Amino acid sequence: MAHNIQNSLRNSIRLMSGYTPGEQPQEGSVIKLNTNENPYPPSPGVIDAIKNALTGDRLRKYPDPTGVKFRKAAADALGLDPDGILIGNGSDDVLTILTRAFVPERGTIVSPSPSYLLYKTLAEIQNAIFETVPFTSHWKLPYPWPFPKANLTFLANPNSPSGTLLEAEEIDTIWHSVDGPLVIDEAYGDFAQHNCLSRFQQGRQPQGLIITRTMSKSYALAGIRFGFAVAHPSLIYELNKVKDSYNCDVISIESAAAAISDQVYLKECVAKIIATRKRLIIQLEKLGFLVTPSEANFVWCTHTKHSPDFLYNELKKANILVRLMNYPGHFGIRITVGSDPEIDQLLLELGRIL
Amino acid sequence: MAHNIQNSLRNSIRLMSGYTPGEQPQEGSVIKLNTNENPYPPSPGVIDAIKNALTGDRLRKYPDPTGVKFRKAAADALGLDPDGILIGNGSDDVLTILTRAFVPERGTIVSPSPSYLLYKTLAEIQNAIFETVPFTSHWKLPYPWPFPKANLTFLANPNSPSGTLLEAEEIDTIWHSVDGPLVIDEAYGDFAQHNCLSRFQQGRQPQGLIITRTMSKSYALAGIRFGFAVAHPSLIYELNKVKDSYNCDVISIESAAAAISDQVYLKECVAKIIATRKRLIIQLEKLGFLVTPSEANFVWCTHTKHSPDFLYNELKKANILVRLMNYPGHFGIRITVGSDPEIDQLLLELGRIL
Repeated sequence: MAHNIQNSLRNSIRLMSGYTPGEQPQEGSVIKLNTNENPYPPSPGVIDAIKNALTGDRLRKYPDPTGVKFRKAAADALGLDPDGILIGNGSDDVLTILTRAFVPERGTIVSPSPSYLLYKTLAEIQNAIFETVPFTSHWKLPYPWPFPKANLTFLANPNSPSGTLLEAEEIDTIWHSVDGPLVIDEAYGDFAQHNCLSRFQQGRQPQGLIITRTMSKSYALAGIRFGFAVAHPSLIYELNKVKDSYNCDVISIESAAAAISDQVYLKECVAKIIATRKRLIIQLEKLGFLVTPSEANFVWCTHTKHSPDFLYNELKKANILVRLMNYPGHFGIRITVGSDPEIDQLLLELGRIL
Repeated sequence: MAHNIQNSLRNSIRLMSGYTPGEQPQEGSVIKLNTNENPYPPSPGVIDAIKNALTGDRLRKYPDPTGVKFRKAAADALGLDPDGILIGNGSDDVLTILTRAFVPERGTIVSPSPSYLLYKTLAEIQNAIFETVPFTSHWKLPYPWPFPKANLTFLANPNSPSGTLLEAEEIDTIWHSVDGPLVIDEAYGDFAQHNCLSRFQQGRQPQGLIITRTMSKSYALAGIRFGFAVAHPSLIYELNKVKDSYNCDVISIESAAAAISDQVYLKECVAKIIATRKRLIIQLEKLGFLVTPSEANFVWCTHTKHSPDFLYNELKKANILVRLMNYPGHFGIRITVGSDPEIDQLLLELGRIL
């Protein structure tokens, strides 16, 4: 028997610090603009779907392992092949599955920087090497692509924390440069002017490209945990071997199917958020902020006179949470586009603080 | 760009066949005695807890990453330290987290055989070596323990498919033999005469021992996906780095907290299942079955005259699903202890078939 079982842990696990998600206060009085949740409720169809799932013996029985109901609903709503969809317990689960499927120990994961911090954590858990490609000062990426031999390349588009969007041609350049799969993480894709889902529509089945989506942002289901990947059906077959058999529960499958079927509600919700985003950016600029143009449901900004940590702390005192993020060369705050009253309150407090 | 992205998959993933869960027909007319679900509904408190979670903004916001509400409820109900509990999206998620935390590529996972098939799948996904220790003909394990240097040792107790239970002294022998952690998978622990949770009660914090539990069986929440691990708090801290931040959703946390708080309901439910199990075993023996004594909510049996696949197929024709399992030296059927009317129907059909 090991007297200190810590010594049995893999070194890579002991040495890592772990991914720190944004603060999630479980009490109600805080204006939460720190984790890019949707300020509006999910489609009313979701509540009905959950209540239906409470009848009969759905709770006591195992769920459908591959979530046929969701995959059919998503295929109908988005013009995809249901066999080209993998379901996940949030898109973090999908990103984990991809890492485990493609990346051996000491393999390489690549992502632009700054970007979603989880990519590095996934590399650490897998004991893989994590390489970053710095964005240029205008949020572009270099050519030639420096890591064509990576086992897996993650590209968040729109990117977080910047909210910026790469053009289709820029994605093609990277896609054609890499030997391994290119994952386009479109967690914020519904808020952008274009996305890569069209590459899988009308029966097209490109190789080497994987799109990940979440229901947490545009569909307002962060509490439910549901995401999915879109890829070639032969690849989805392999990825299903890596996921936990029952990774999505009966309620999340029903909720996600109902939400994705209600594209009218989605579009209304997204339109409201984009209108608020526009107003937020104009007002922040009036207050002396430098704001990066955003194609997501958040904005990335710095202030010409005040430090990000000062602003973060002052807002926190006023019960407004934003995300303070400190990357090499990029120190700023990321503000989720909340409801209009929430953004009014934010702007009022910022006016008082500055 | 790789023209065939399959070549980018890790070899271990391409070569594995994947875990095949028991059939999960999504239609209602089948008597399902194949995946050890509970025939009774979950505690009434679960439905109330879910309905409460539908109000306010719980669905659109991220859940609590470490599930404090569940951990406190479980600690109160079971006499544990809440900091010694890790939450999981089903106990399969917990087993996955343990594998990733302890087992490097080419490391070794050990389990008795026959046992839960997922352990082998977890080794394959991790590209680890899977070693088995055959049970003796009386479902005992050998001494000295043949794999003291394993990175991780899984011991399902009660075991599946046998339903047999190792005594505390037998577990101690293995625990004291292994350098790495010993995981006691107590998915069926509530149906047995004793279990290992007591080792973590009254403030005790043993090193090197990890207990996993599921809410899918005794708590009738297979559809919800919730499991947990009990271990030393310093180890739980490390395991939290490996899990997805939001691996459990708001509804599953609320459901599991409500279910585990209702120990009176649990005990009633378990008592009914144990009474039915006793009756089922007596009747099966009258029909010429050899039945292994069971401490779980299923029984493992073979027939003196008919092959397991014949019986499985004949029952399936009669809309009764049992689990046909073929391990080296052990070919039989595993029958879940259903409700009394379900078991009556099973016995009626068996009487007709034989």
